[in-house]
Amino acid sequence: MFEIRTDLAVEEKESFPGDGGEVTGVSLREWSKANSKIKLTEVAILDAHGARAMGKPKGTYVTMEARALIRGDEDYHREVAGELAMQLKKMVKELKRQKKVADKTNIHVLVVGLGNPSVTPDSLGPQVLGNLKVNRNMDEGEDVVLSGIVPGVMAQTGMETAEILRGIIRETRPDLVIAIDALAARSIRRLGTTIQLTDTGIHPGSGVGNHRHSLTMDSLGIPVLAIGVPTVVGAAAIVHDTIAVLIETLANNMETRGMGDFLEHLNPDEQYQLISELLEPEFGALYVTPPDIDQTVRRLSYTISEGIHMAFYPLFGAS
Amino acid sequence: MFEIRTDLAVEEKESFPGDGGEVTGVSLREWSKANSKIKLTEVAILDAHGARAMGKPKGTYVTMEARALIRGDEDYHREVAGELAMQLKKMVKELKRQKKVADKTNIHVLVVGLGNPSVTPDSLGPQVLGNLKVNRNMDEGEDVVLSGIVPGVMAQTGMETAEILRGIIRETRPDLVIAIDALAARSIRRLGTTIQLTDTGIHPGSGVGNHRHSLTMDSLGIPVLAIGVPTVVGAAAIVHDTIAVLIETLANNMETRGMGDFLEHLNPDEQYQLISELLEPEFGALYVTPPDIDQTVRRLSYTISEGIHMAFYPLFGAS
Amino acid sequence: MFEIRTDLAVEEKESFPGDGGEVTGVSLREWSKANSKIKLTEVAILDAHGARAMGKPKGTYVTMEARALIRGDEDYHREVAGELAMQLKKMVKELKRQKKVADKTNIHVLVVGLGNPSVTPDSLGPQVLGNLKVNRNMDEGEDVVLSGIVPGVMAQTGMETAEILRGIIRETRPDLVIAIDALAARSIRRLGTTIQLTDTGIHPGSGVGNHRHSLTMDSLGIPVLAIGVPTVVGAAAIVHDTIAVLIETLANNMETRGMGDFLEHLNPDEQYQLISELLEPEFGALYVTPPDIDQTVRRLSYTISEGIHMAFYPLFGAS
Amino acid sequence: MFEIRTDLAVEEKESFPGDGGEVTGVSLREWSKANSKIKLTEVAILDAHGARAMGKPKGTYVTMEARALIRGDEDYHREVAGELAMQLKKMVKELKRQKKVADKTNIHVLVVGLGNPSVTPDSLGPQVLGNLKVNRNMDEGEDVVLSGIVPGVMAQTGMETAEILRGIIRETRPDLVIAIDALAARSIRRLGTTIQLTDTGIHPGSGVGNHRHSLTMDSLGIPVLAIGVPTVVGAAAIVHDTIAVLIETLANNMETRGMGDFLEHLNPDEQYQLISELLEPEFGALYVTPPDIDQTVRRLSYTISEGIHMAFYPLFGAS
Repeated sequence: MFEIRTDLAVEEKESFPGDGGEVTGVSLREWSKANSKIKLTEVAILDAHGARAMGKPKGTYVTMEARALIRGDEDYHREVAGELAMQLKKMVKELKRQKKVADKTNIHVLVVGLGNPSVTPDSLGPQVLGNLKVNRNMDEGEDVVLSGIVPGVMAQTGMETAEILRGIIRETRPDLVIAIDALAARSIRRLGTTIQLTDTGIHPGSGVGNHRHSLTMDSLGIPVLAIGVPTVVGAAAIVHDTIAVLIETLANNMETRGMGDFLEHLNPDEQYQLISELLEPEFGALYVTPPDIDQTVRRLSYTISEGIHMAFYPLFGAS
Repeated sequence: MFEIRTDLAVEEKESFPGDGGEVTGVSLREWSKANSKIKLTEVAILDAHGARAMGKPKGTYVTMEARALIRGDEDYHREVAGELAMQLKKMVKELKRQKKVADKTNIHVLVVGLGNPSVTPDSLGPQVLGNLKVNRNMDEGEDVVLSGIVPGVMAQTGMETAEILRGIIRETRPDLVIAIDALAARSIRRLGTTIQLTDTGIHPGSGVGNHRHSLTMDSLGIPVLAIGVPTVVGAAAIVHDTIAVLIETLANNMETRGMGDFLEHLNPDEQYQLISELLEPEFGALYVTPPDIDQTVRRLSYTISEGIHMAFYPLFGAS
Repeated sequence: MFEIRTDLAVEEKESFPGDGGEVTGVSLREWSKANSKIKLTEVAILDAHGARAMGKPKGTYVTMEARALIRGDEDYHREVAGELAMQLKKMVKELKRQKKVADKTNIHVLVVGLGNPSVTPDSLGPQVLGNLKVNRNMDEGEDVVLSGIVPGVMAQTGMETAEILRGIIRETRPDLVIAIDALAARSIRRLGTTIQLTDTGIHPGSGVGNHRHSLTMDSLGIPVLAIGVPTVVGAAAIVHDTIAVLIETLANNMETRGMGDFLEHLNPDEQYQLISELLEPEFGALYVTPPDIDQTVRRLSYTISEGIHMAFYPLFGAS
Repeated sequence: MFEIRTDLAVEEKESFPGDGGEVTGVSLREWSKANSKIKLTEVAILDAHGARAMGKPKGTYVTMEARALIRGDEDYHREVAGELAMQLKKMVKELKRQKKVADKTNIHVLVVGLGNPSVTPDSLGPQVLGNLKVNRNMDEGEDVVLSGIVPGVMAQTGMETAEILRGIIRETRPDLVIAIDALAARSIRRLGTTIQLTDTGIHPGSGVGNHRHSLTMDSLGIPVLAIGVPTVVGAAAIVHDTIAVLIETLANNMETRGMGDFLEHLNPDEQYQLISELLEPEFGALYVTPPDIDQTVRRLSYTISEGIHMAFYPLFGAS
């Protein structure tokens, strides 16, 4: 079955009937900070039923949304970085509570910048790593030990990212991986305005270019937090949405109502079959991205690296 | 009227009824080299009628197509570079015949690398200029004088490219501009496999990101040859093509024939109206590009710079 | 006569006997901000005598020094950016007072990023322009109109930067140029810790790689402010300083005092002759730079772009 | 004792008295190809005595020198690539003979691009990897399996390169590492004109920036071939050479002969002491590089990647 892919749990949730109504095994919580324009959403996938329904693994997905991120307001980016830091710390605390990470101050965090540095919308991870201050090689009295790697993409290395990381983890023994990745969304308005933080790691088929393999506690042996920002929309999603509008248009129009109705009342399987015939297989590998994506990726790479610094370097930004 | 844009004259021609049949004021010539897998097409727009029909200005558009370009075969790239050099020399000769370029050996050619170096599919022009050997600042006994500039994009300069170039041309007095640009095609299979050379310059709305203004003899005062490679497909084109397939599918299917027929027999105006409603205006600014576009742009930037070297440095490559 | 080059007026001043004592035609003022670790120096070259003595044109050279800049303290960079903004505004005000710039609010400033983006220590100018927010193409209600250009280096364009800029200025009519450039210092401890702002423009032979030609009111027709940061030390300076230490060592050592004395008492012409024989001509084109210069250039490019934003966008940073 | 460092065995050899005369435990062979301007030198360090004398480990160092490499002659680069391929194949054959690499056709070679991609003269390794065609992830019927990695530098990763590589090697089990690195030479004329290939791997303190740790059969568990090109000269070397010329000048000059003689006849220990006092410790971390190093690195990165392709892809370049 052709799947219109999104890497954002919050979008997957919205796609359920009734504008994202109740789904067994999935909880939703939304809030926003007083005095802030950041909207937070936590989607928790609680069990196997929820995971099946959402097409995503069990775990917590926190989304920070801020339309203003698309603009270059520096103070605003700092506020989002602060929120990201808080959510990161909360997830690490929870991992400690669950004994998945040792309950000590000086944990060692390996930050991984996924993606292809030479392809603008896929370069978020490498750009975050370019801003990151690591300290494993220094003795600066920081509590948390940070190291970092840009593993490259398989077309350039001939190796799966999991192979590279497993090796590095075995040698350097970090307690936790934080993977940074550019994501595919379904909706254009998400591009560059949303940051997703999850404790489920990276899953096959996610990320720009659809190349990613699994990076999880199962495949790497230590917990994997993932920070992602949607920078592309799959071409298939664009086509799918337009056809949905076409069907609705036909159904709302006197003259063509019959056709719209007909299409609308195809059962889901028939709808999928029709749509997947329309969506040429090669569309799956294509992505849609706005022409100013370079500015967006650059700005958000700073927001994310600053968020990581704030979470793990207690003295960061204190002047 | 919503226009599904292509920067390739050869695609525009193909879009006419009868698979690109006769159009008054447009001539078409196709050939290929013996022992070579390069297919050449020359579309000549001869008069105002042809220009209106094609939505492109009067002039000659030569297309070199080679599926193998997508792969990294170096000898093949060299062959295409040689062909590009030949076509370039032919166009320059014709400009001399028409007295648009002075009939002397040591003409001065200003090569312009259009596009945004930070956005991979838009970086073809800057990358070609990165490979280019200019000689205006040297005395190397070459016949042709080459200079080059990467003017940047308006979002970064606050200036129109034509303003920048007019100023430079007034100061340095070249005889001819060769502008290199990344193009938008309608068909995915054109991406990275086609080079278009035209004597009509750059026209408003062409290029990746839809930002270009006019760069022509009218706006710059000297002839402008343009070399372009399609690196993106407009999101609108993808949607349009899928809807066309939907209509055809409906028309071919017993049960839905009525609807397909209905849609097919909307008059063109009605079809356009429906489709332009479906194609959200913001799609016009979005482009679709494959994830390995960095390799494609890099390889073709070498082919093009080598083609220019071969055309203007007689001793190039002779060892 | 072989000249050990520095682009910093403050270093030139220090090189005078008596640790930079009185020089006719040159005034020196030093101060520092309360509560701040920024040291400011203003060298004013007042007349032709001062210009000859300093080997630099008449005008004002303000130096901001801050050892802490070498580290990545963000708040500190912001403080330096604020100081740069203040000095920039003061220079623009003075240019208005002298009627060199029209006395209106909405002046048009063309920011020029000199240097080669592909050579790390020479990429300061292009990197500042990459961060810069221009607004000439927008109507955002800002007072000052900003445009920007990265003209490239002659080896890549075949054109002198002055030619390119003269053309652009004639077309777009800015009131003022601000040129950003990487500089050569004499002392290693200056690298990345000093910002020089001058109203004298760019002079032949300055900048990394020794390629620059004159960019001044004379050559461009409008006033040119220049912002520079030393990122390299000429290899010749390193050698010169070592030989000076050798001579001193010999003079201070009982056994070798005679030699040191001899060398010390060569007259300046003889000293220069000896030294210029020792400094192979090719050393002039070589530069010395530390291995972490990429971090330094990146950080300072933000400080400078933020300084320009603060000077010309009144609302910048106000949240 | 302060050491004037060179990564080139051939330079180390030349520095011996008698212009590189006989040294016990070191053999030297020089030849050049008929019809070619490539000069080849093989320095073999045969035993512990030779290793001590040369300050380099036992093994074979092949140098390809070609002044013309500094220019952009493409056919010439191809010729050098062919020679590099031949020497590489010879070394692999010898490793098989010594049973250090399994004697099978389809060996797996991991190519490692050392250095900092953001610092131009240190970016040779990453740039070679950018050109490299890996095939471990494909089934293309090639004999040799190639994979590749750009491990980054410790300041950016917080990890030693050996840690990263040991991990990757344990996971992916290559038979052989080929490490590409930018080197420090003693002589400016070597920059960009020499390629060194050695079977001894990478040794502590070599490479640009002096950051490298050991990458050898001992530290990685599999044989390591290293390909290097000098792109910098240590500032210390420049100073040292100048002082040597000073001493010679003094000794040759009637008036100052005594001083020169005195200095010349200091015993080596005293000379070293004097010189190391003159060479400030921080000079060790500084490097000297020409302003057009970006072109040199780019061109040589193609020569080296092409050499590797020719060595391991039998069908490469055959059209």
